[in-house]
Amino acid sequence: MTRSYRATVEYDGTAYGGFQIQPGRRTIQGELERAVHRITQQFVRIAGAGRTDAGVHGRGQVISFRAEWSHGCEDLQRAMNAVLPRDIAVRKVAFARDRFHARFSASSRVYVYAIYNGPVRAPFLSRFSHHVARPLDLSAMAEAGSYLEGEHDFAAFGHPPTGDSTVRVAHHVEWGCGVPAWGNCPGTDSDKLVQFEIEANAFLRGMVRRIVGTLVLVGTGSLTPAGFSEILESREIRRSGAPAPASGLCLWRVRYGQNGEVGSPECSWMS
Amino acid sequence: MTRSYRATVEYDGTAYGGFQIQPGRRTIQGELERAVHRITQQFVRIAGAGRTDAGVHGRGQVISFRAEWSHGCEDLQRAMNAVLPRDIAVRKVAFARDRFHARFSASSRVYVYAIYNGPVRAPFLSRFSHHVARPLDLSAMAEAGSYLEGEHDFAAFGHPPTGDSTVRVAHHVEWGCGVPAWGNCPGTDSDKLVQFEIEANAFLRGMVRRIVGTLVLVGTGSLTPAGFSEILESREIRRSGAPAPASGLCLWRVRYGQNGEVGSPECSWMS
Repeated sequence: MTRSYRATVEYDGTAYGGFQIQPGRRTIQGELERAVHRITQQFVRIAGAGRTDAGVHGRGQVISFRAEWSHGCEDLQRAMNAVLPRDIAVRKVAFARDRFHARFSASSRVYVYAIYNGPVRAPFLSRFSHHVARPLDLSAMAEAGSYLEGEHDFAAFGHPPTGDSTVRVAHHVEWGCGVPAWGNCPGTDSDKLVQFEIEANAFLRGMVRRIVGTLVLVGTGSLTPAGFSEILESREIRRSGAPAPASGLCLWRVRYGQNGEVGSPECSWMS
Repeated sequence: MTRSYRATVEYDGTAYGGFQIQPGRRTIQGELERAVHRITQQFVRIAGAGRTDAGVHGRGQVISFRAEWSHGCEDLQRAMNAVLPRDIAVRKVAFARDRFHARFSASSRVYVYAIYNGPVRAPFLSRFSHHVARPLDLSAMAEAGSYLEGEHDFAAFGHPPTGDSTVRVAHHVEWGCGVPAWGNCPGTDSDKLVQFEIEANAFLRGMVRRIVGTLVLVGTGSLTPAGFSEILESREIRRSGAPAPASGLCLWRVRYGQNGEVGSPECSWMS
């Protein structure tokens, strides 16, 4: 019987041309579809909650697909992990309601951007962070970041997918430091790892990286928090800073409302 | 004026054929010597405290060399970092006494081996740990590990460099869990990261990896702590387990006695 599945996927995006399938490049979606094909001999189309760009990582990427599979969800997870490359892992598989779609059913996405702010680069963190050598003024960055909260036209920080609206709702914006969720790796003092977390209903392409690139200008004193607010209000993309590198960005979590919940007792979605 | 320098080097060893220079392979020593040559136009020979194997990482590797450099230690550090590959970083440079030698002056080395012990692999940790899916009995591993402390003939766990003695002194052996120094990375519960730390005056080639490979047999119940002790006492390398993978191993720290101290006030070694 063909059923709908939902899965959480974690990946080191360094070696990939992004989530979405594209000709001539290795992509996360491509590897996942190939894995399902190898296991089930079915050509399935996999939807992802966030179309992460080349080099961007996923910790809580959510995918959905329909497939015929006569064994349990854990067996499907194990089988996929057995054939996926080492830098991609399926962390959980569950049945989903038929109408569940990883992207369209999502109510919000959380992205985390990690900056290693120390004078000398940290080789153990370089795949998963952006190295900024100059000391950052975190309180100025937090003040500037707070202007992002709420409903705004984010045109200053990204292009819409297809001539669509550039209005998005940022539910939560926070700079964290010293309690790294992202890495507390050897040779690095954890207080040098600075993390920017943003939750919004949806994101424009390149939005988090442009926001972080502009906030770093605030952190190094090239821009004031008020100046940052003006850039946001200007809705002019040419005024924002260059996008911060992909390595620091991670799709951290995807939230679903009632639509995303499934009730199947034998293999239900717990979180 | 030609002076002696001491430096601490951190590296992600994944892409390298080990520390020691060898024809046809990229090595840490080779990259470091090339960096000094690019900066100073001098061919220097660099000594490392530990000759880490292919794929093994360094967090506190110590190197020594003699070079002519008319600027300060921090300038030398910056210049080296500017030309070194991204996965190698010089964390500190200081003047050293002329008789200081990174390897021969060292009084002990600390190695840390990291195991990710969870059912599903963690892509963010895969470069810096060994994934063991089966649950490990940590108390049995700690009991077995305690037999290693003190002076022993470690022939069961490694070959000597050149027909030399296989007697070494393990000052400290410990299994840690839940407070990761090594990684607290996304998608991974830190309590699943298990770390083995061993400090000894010196190590046989492959010794830590064979010890860990054998301790994992204890952790999964294939071997008792008493059986582990018997293997140590047997001094027969064929009785020990297969070496654990290089990815989990890191040269954590090198200690020096009075010999390693330097007194130059302008650029002294603080720790």
